[in-house]
Amino acid sequence: MTAPSLKARVHVMLKDGVLDPQGEAVRHALGTLGFGGVEAVRQGKVIELDLAATDRAAAEAEVRAMCEKLLANTVIEKYTVEIA
Amino acid sequence: MTAPSLKARVHVMLKDGVLDPQGEAVRHALGTLGFGGVEAVRQGKVIELDLAATDRAAAEAEVRAMCEKLLANTVIEKYTVEIA
Repeated sequence: MTAPSLKARVHVMLKDGVLDPQGEAVRHALGTLGFGGVEAVRQGKVIELDLAATDRAAAEAEVRAMCEKLLANTVIEKYTVEIA
Repeated sequence: MTAPSLKARVHVMLKDGVLDPQGEAVRHALGTLGFGGVEAVRQGKVIELDLAATDRAAAEAEVRAMCEKLLANTVIEKYTVEIA
């Protein structure tokens, strides 16, 4: 018997007003490769966590605390948490 | 009137057998911060694209071509494409 666990997926993206040079570089590179119809690109991080937990609400609260403390720089980044 | 457009979201993650030192570093840092119930962490990229397109199937095929050519290193990475 395995321990109960939940999976969490966190998306960390730069906030909308913040310049994203990495995304812009990708957009430019796609144009160079012939992909002309790309109007904008934003690049961010996705972090998948396996949690030893059974309570979805508690797990979401804990992952949000992880985001505030470590996973996201909330001055310039926004994050979303999904529990699966 | 604005031009028609679709949004695509691409997830690029290391394949399951591939060591993820960045995710392991995050797991260790979370433990140091007192988040003890984290069994595994995998970190990847998320890329959001605004496309000047109306045909969802054609857009998905184009984004998959972008993944194969530029966005993912398919030797070690897997990707998923969502069109919204």
